[in-house]
Amino acid sequence: MKNRRYALVRHTDKAPIMDCVEWRIEEAPSPGPGEVLTRTLLLSVDPANRGWMSSTPPSYMPGIGFGATVRSSSIDEVLASNHPDFKPGDLVEAMSGWQDYAVAPGHALRRIEPRGDLALELSLYGLSGLTAYVGLMDIGRPKPGETLFVSAAAGSVGTIVGQLAKAAGCRVVGSAGSDKKCRWLVDELGFDAAVNYKGEPLRKQLRAACPEGIDIYFDNTGGEALQAAVLLANERARIICCGVISRWTAENPDQGIKGIPGLIAMKSMLMQGFIVFDNLHRRKEAFGLLSRLVADNRLTVRSDIIDGLENAPQALAGLFAGENMGKRIIRVAEPGQRQVD
Amino acid sequence: MKNRRYALVRHTDKAPIMDCVEWRIEEAPSPGPGEVLTRTLLLSVDPANRGWMSSTPPSYMPGIGFGATVRSSSIDEVLASNHPDFKPGDLVEAMSGWQDYAVAPGHALRRIEPRGDLALELSLYGLSGLTAYVGLMDIGRPKPGETLFVSAAAGSVGTIVGQLAKAAGCRVVGSAGSDKKCRWLVDELGFDAAVNYKGEPLRKQLRAACPEGIDIYFDNTGGEALQAAVLLANERARIICCGVISRWTAENPDQGIKGIPGLIAMKSMLMQGFIVFDNLHRRKEAFGLLSRLVADNRLTVRSDIIDGLENAPQALAGLFAGENMGKRIIRVAEPGQRQVD
Repeated sequence: MKNRRYALVRHTDKAPIMDCVEWRIEEAPSPGPGEVLTRTLLLSVDPANRGWMSSTPPSYMPGIGFGATVRSSSIDEVLASNHPDFKPGDLVEAMSGWQDYAVAPGHALRRIEPRGDLALELSLYGLSGLTAYVGLMDIGRPKPGETLFVSAAAGSVGTIVGQLAKAAGCRVVGSAGSDKKCRWLVDELGFDAAVNYKGEPLRKQLRAACPEGIDIYFDNTGGEALQAAVLLANERARIICCGVISRWTAENPDQGIKGIPGLIAMKSMLMQGFIVFDNLHRRKEAFGLLSRLVADNRLTVRSDIIDGLENAPQALAGLFAGENMGKRIIRVAEPGQRQVD
Repeated sequence: MKNRRYALVRHTDKAPIMDCVEWRIEEAPSPGPGEVLTRTLLLSVDPANRGWMSSTPPSYMPGIGFGATVRSSSIDEVLASNHPDFKPGDLVEAMSGWQDYAVAPGHALRRIEPRGDLALELSLYGLSGLTAYVGLMDIGRPKPGETLFVSAAAGSVGTIVGQLAKAAGCRVVGSAGSDKKCRWLVDELGFDAAVNYKGEPLRKQLRAACPEGIDIYFDNTGGEALQAAVLLANERARIICCGVISRWTAENPDQGIKGIPGLIAMKSMLMQGFIVFDNLHRRKEAFGLLSRLVADNRLTVRSDIIDGLENAPQALAGLFAGENMGKRIIRVAEPGQRQVD
């Protein structure tokens, strides 16, 4: 059984993603004692993939060694198991990365019972949904009538944040990189307003879209959106530091944000980060709320599916180019062993 | 009765403080219905005085109009009262500013029962003590064994923060602007270490003084100290945004802090500001703890007293030059009408 995989061969710090990986075809691994052999079905495409491929990976996880498979969370099907909790045919959440077959100890896998479309297990009922829920509820603490702004609003986390905040009674404004995305946010997802950051200066657009200022800012980008939010923040505003996707594309990512710490002090503001992996025990609470909102037609998500493992580098690069609307996913195979190419 | 006062005549944005005020001698005001006439005894000298004199005063208080008396909190003696809660001879906390006599409505005054030295009512049992207590306890949430770093550690708030954190079981490191202040922090106040920010690069000194990283940073300065703290912060570190005194003296105060928001997100950090005036109802709780620590010889404060109202501008300018050790206070008069010159 041959395993196709992408190995990391160069750090992504400055190089295009395509130049950092090498396509290899090798023997598939065999499971040892307590281990499970799985086939990758779906791969999650996230900004974090690129950070893990850099020479300065985030502190909560080690970097990827050269020659190792590019890391990514995945939905897999169990093919063979030496672990009592799993049997062939089980669907599991895993970290198999950019390859067809992976071996993992049983404790690193989590069996899932899909609530519908399998892709939702990587978005709404996966890390994106948990990230949106924990960040918004714990740090944002939305109250009816407050104004929430979310950047990268058409992305996987942003779409969920915005709709969760609407359900909490907030006025919701999002930023995205095209007029098409902005229309989708307002017309389909129920955002109150959306601004195209590639148009007029973001701060000017936001000032118009948030006439009563900003109470909560869910930051997926850093950069210009964070700068605008800090300046437009109301007293006691909360800023959820979730992602810094702009650092990959900004002309001068290290220039810093003006008004920090001065405006934080003067406005009694709060800025806080969190790591979703510290909150895995809260899935039930989060997914319970999210599934109720889906049942009530108050929450819609969209998957942006790219077929074929070989397209993984382009799929990830496209995320940074803003190609996706909703959750970008690579479909590697379908359950029951049919490979997708 | 003649009232000596300093009127604001220019904003402090770029001008030296001395050039922004004018010494005037006028008739003392008379109290109207419900009002109280007081004589200023002690004036608190704080970085906020300068901010209130600028063209961009903090949002929690209006700026000072040209011709109006420079604002400052004070301890006064009541001379005449048209308000049932006050009688001549009462000591009150007020906002009389840089003048001998002031008239205020009764609700703007708070009668005090000094716990000893009257100057402590402007420091330990005044806004400095409340600021240190609320910021450290609510946002810092110190736990035994954690490392706390505080900037402007030899100042009024910093000395209290450091000793409160010691009492909470933390390892405490402070920064100050002279070797003399650093020795005082360690030898007299019980800090574990102190670094002179005018010596070796602050980040290098701090790295040595905080071998286990920084869990809590009480920021009185912004600038270089905040930058070093963000870089040396441990996961789940808390940064209390209290003051930005460095913005008055930094060569490039607007350059921003590197690692924000990236390190906030990656390290699950928290940065939060607060306004002490929102916490006035917590005086009893705060001063109860502080007075118990004083009684147990675990807390020492020092007043840095400048005699004479006419010296107010120099006293405030000297605060920014780092002249003071402990709480700087201007003594205008002593209780019982004896004026100090």
